[in-house]
Amino acid sequence: MEMLIRRGFIWQSFEIYGGMAGFIDYAPLGNNLRRKIENIWREFFVINERVAEIDTPLIGVEEVFVASGHATSFVDIAIECQKCGRVYRADHYIKDKLNIEINSSIDAIKEILEVYDLKCECDGNFSEPFSMNLMFSTNIGAGKGKKAFLRPETAQGIFIAFKRISNYFRDKLPFGVAQIGRAFRNEISPRQGVIRLREFNQAELEFFVHPREKKHSNFREVADDELTLVDKFEKVHRITLSKAVERGIIANEILAYFIGKTRRFLLKIGIKDEKMRFRQHKDDEKAHYAADCWDAEVLTSFGWIEVVGIADRTDYDLSRHSKFSREDLSIFISYSKPLVVKIKKAVPKMDVLGPFFKSKAKKIAELLEKIEFEGEKIEIELEGEKIKLSNEFFEVKEVEEEITGERVIPHVIEPSFGLDRISYAVLEHSFDKDIVKGEERRVLRLKRWLAPIEVAVLPLLSKEPFTTKAIDIASLLRKNGFYTDYDDSGSIGRRYRRYDEIGTPFCITVDHQTFEDDTVTIRDRDSTEQVRVKVLDLPEILKELMTSEIGIENFGKRFQ
Amino acid sequence: MEMLIRRGFIWQSFEIYGGMAGFIDYAPLGNNLRRKIENIWREFFVINERVAEIDTPLIGVEEVFVASGHATSFVDIAIECQKCGRVYRADHYIKDKLNIEINSSIDAIKEILEVYDLKCECDGNFSEPFSMNLMFSTNIGAGKGKKAFLRPETAQGIFIAFKRISNYFRDKLPFGVAQIGRAFRNEISPRQGVIRLREFNQAELEFFVHPREKKHSNFREVADDELTLVDKFEKVHRITLSKAVERGIIANEILAYFIGKTRRFLLKIGIKDEKMRFRQHKDDEKAHYAADCWDAEVLTSFGWIEVVGIADRTDYDLSRHSKFSREDLSIFISYSKPLVVKIKKAVPKMDVLGPFFKSKAKKIAELLEKIEFEGEKIEIELEGEKIKLSNEFFEVKEVEEEITGERVIPHVIEPSFGLDRISYAVLEHSFDKDIVKGEERRVLRLKRWLAPIEVAVLPLLSKEPFTTKAIDIASLLRKNGFYTDYDDSGSIGRRYRRYDEIGTPFCITVDHQTFEDDTVTIRDRDSTEQVRVKVLDLPEILKELMTSEIGIENFGKRFQ
Repeated sequence: MEMLIRRGFIWQSFEIYGGMAGFIDYAPLGNNLRRKIENIWREFFVINERVAEIDTPLIGVEEVFVASGHATSFVDIAIECQKCGRVYRADHYIKDKLNIEINSSIDAIKEILEVYDLKCECDGNFSEPFSMNLMFSTNIGAGKGKKAFLRPETAQGIFIAFKRISNYFRDKLPFGVAQIGRAFRNEISPRQGVIRLREFNQAELEFFVHPREKKHSNFREVADDELTLVDKFEKVHRITLSKAVERGIIANEILAYFIGKTRRFLLKIGIKDEKMRFRQHKDDEKAHYAADCWDAEVLTSFGWIEVVGIADRTDYDLSRHSKFSREDLSIFISYSKPLVVKIKKAVPKMDVLGPFFKSKAKKIAELLEKIEFEGEKIEIELEGEKIKLSNEFFEVKEVEEEITGERVIPHVIEPSFGLDRISYAVLEHSFDKDIVKGEERRVLRLKRWLAPIEVAVLPLLSKEPFTTKAIDIASLLRKNGFYTDYDDSGSIGRRYRRYDEIGTPFCITVDHQTFEDDTVTIRDRDSTEQVRVKVLDLPEILKELMTSEIGIENFGKRFQ
Repeated sequence: MEMLIRRGFIWQSFEIYGGMAGFIDYAPLGNNLRRKIENIWREFFVINERVAEIDTPLIGVEEVFVASGHATSFVDIAIECQKCGRVYRADHYIKDKLNIEINSSIDAIKEILEVYDLKCECDGNFSEPFSMNLMFSTNIGAGKGKKAFLRPETAQGIFIAFKRISNYFRDKLPFGVAQIGRAFRNEISPRQGVIRLREFNQAELEFFVHPREKKHSNFREVADDELTLVDKFEKVHRITLSKAVERGIIANEILAYFIGKTRRFLLKIGIKDEKMRFRQHKDDEKAHYAADCWDAEVLTSFGWIEVVGIADRTDYDLSRHSKFSREDLSIFISYSKPLVVKIKKAVPKMDVLGPFFKSKAKKIAELLEKIEFEGEKIEIELEGEKIKLSNEFFEVKEVEEEITGERVIPHVIEPSFGLDRISYAVLEHSFDKDIVKGEERRVLRLKRWLAPIEVAVLPLLSKEPFTTKAIDIASLLRKNGFYTDYDDSGSIGRRYRRYDEIGTPFCITVDHQTFEDDTVTIRDRDSTEQVRVKVLDLPEILKELMTSEIGIENFGKRFQ
């Protein structure tokens, strides 16, 4: 953590005003890292899927969260000390003090407080436990205005735009919608730095599928990937995804597909396979509406932490919003071949209806023709009046009808990524020490494509003409889109170490030979080897190096 | 606007719950467009400057906005109808109804209401005008918690992190810090769709400079650019930037540099030069602390709208935060050559001091040596006791001292971009109609590098083997990172029109010849011309086309 602050990855927010738990600043290096992780996520989960990305407001009107259930259920139980006034999250305090895992119900917590006579650290007594909604609330407009909340997840903005989204995809399942952005959780008393934040960054994908077709056309691409699963009975499997589906460990193929894709994404950004596992929610742990749910967990110095949740949320969200907004959020699915069914129809006898119902007869006949019919009597409603018709007024005919499709509320598979924890885990897994020329070296072995500073241009000596030449090269590389540092302070060895420590994969050094043949050296962070290349070739070579993991010795002539 | 909604650029937020003024959803195409504009901004204002990007919380603790002045001054005057209860922003309502431009003071508005007997649209009378703070407020933590606001601009997150930032740049001016993200403004009664939002997207750069060195080393790059300036006396100039600085129209070179760079950025994303001007704030319009301020304005169907503000904010922000946080936010600037100054020093005479002051003599001597001295008597304070010393106790010597530098509070030049308005203006300026084969065509002439869907792959006929081949090509292009659509619905002409309308620069068509020689056609949106190229060459060709404006006839053999 100290290195992360000192080197410019993460800072404490509002530091000069005393700080505030649960908020961090992404400093220059941390910001670049997270943005790059987001872009790779976009490649995996937007560009290479039938997925569109949207960006909806962070403030949401109350109705949204009443429908989603957050207004009532998104709560933690708090306890407040009657003496010092400190407020704790009850389950965390009980875990800390008594090492008891407790699920968050007011009654259970009350019992524990009494049985163990649990007191505050100041020795004060606690008040009655109370539940606290974890959404930040605000008001829109003048005066008291309209009640609103900061979104606790990006997903709801997707669900409520479902009609527009479905229309965008011309109502053809499956399709997905992604959103990357801030979400908020007014934690009672957050600790653990970057692991438990009040303001955090999510990347969420809501992938809408036909309820009876939980498959993915690209499943074969990941089917043979082997990974570590911890099932809901806490049994550990090292198994391929196809076998896990076959044996029913993972509920369906599309969940397995996204588990596989999540693993490949995490590997791509440098999470180590041996420190990654997928853990199934136990039956009492998962949301009541979820058909199955898996967390991607990563081993860090905080232990195993959840970084991704992958859930089959069924039609819960769309059904709730449909109910509360009274909008039809179903999709009409055409059958590939129409179904032919026989139905009974009432054919009106106009010669009986006419004399009896007079001016109403025509309308009654129209209504009759629309009715699917069983039995001998029909009741219809005409302009508020209920009319019973016995079979003297109509004939019953059996006719064949084509059913071309049906309306369904899609199910949704949701991979939800916590970008802050992922960024932190990437940093931890990349941190390394080795010995170079007899000295210990700290080196951040970030994947090249994640490096916040991609290349550093260093004049061998801090004087002319080295400095001007190095500044010109830095400018050339910036024009080619590279995040480039120029640095002329301290010995060249010390500068290399500085860039090793922040994960910069390549240092370019301007030396005496540069002025003879317009070449420079490229130094590789990991091997510390150097090669010499022409200045003019630098942009092309670096472009290729930055997207690959090949050694630099493939480029140019070896440097002495 | 209708096209923007229908085609998936922008949607109304919370539509199924009745919507809410001042909020929009970025639909799939609008989201991609804005993200691409952000990335180009990053190239211009982060990568190619001595600038780092950070990302700080959207929620800010109260102290920040007390110091910045927002807690007291970020207000509009509201009037409320006593009959129907509607609340209006007073200056807007007065402009609408009376066509009077009024500056927002409660007294001025009260006078207008009385003089013109202004009533609500419902004919009700207005209450006394009152000021309303435009920040959304919330609370952090349990219970009443700590008062906080949603940030009204991204800039404050930068100013309060200044010490860390300066340290990151090793205290060497000039340097800049950028932030791209959401900001909030609780407008009283927003209209005008995307132009006046309660939640909006900013890209801000705070460029810190030495107060006496308001220059930029790259000024020559833009010095000869000619542009339209409207000065504070409303006089219009078509002039180069170097002349504008020379003649004192723009206050300093660094402001001119960022005006020039802003213009180049706006041109790059497709804002038309003839619909762009830079307008100087009048003396009564600009903030009291600003040395000079220019708005980039763009002509749209809403008239000239401000899309960028470029201000010399002097040391106002850092000084305020320094005062309120009691942190020193100055930087030590070393002189290139130390200044040598002569000062007078008091050299204690121990032989007189000793006998007279006894045990205190040593401490008095130490204090004397630290004092810079003028005159014949010295008063010092020793452990609370004031001691007067006449010149019998010391000798006066003149000594030379080196001053190596000074502490300064940097000034800040702030280019602040409204990304929502910019995105909207880009769309308006790109919208075009022409005649193709005798039919009117709607076409969005977006710069290729901004296209939300970069390429559409279309089977000539919606059947095998065309469809599978087209799907494979789409997949190839996606793997190469292109935003790719696959579309097989409707006639090929209709599909071309659909992609013309959303600004997709290239359509790839799989036709009969594809199965003979593995070639496809690329159709250019603007010229509607087509060329035929090998499928395998597509990724390379498209990569080159997407970053250039060269015609497609340079690639492959002409079709037909």
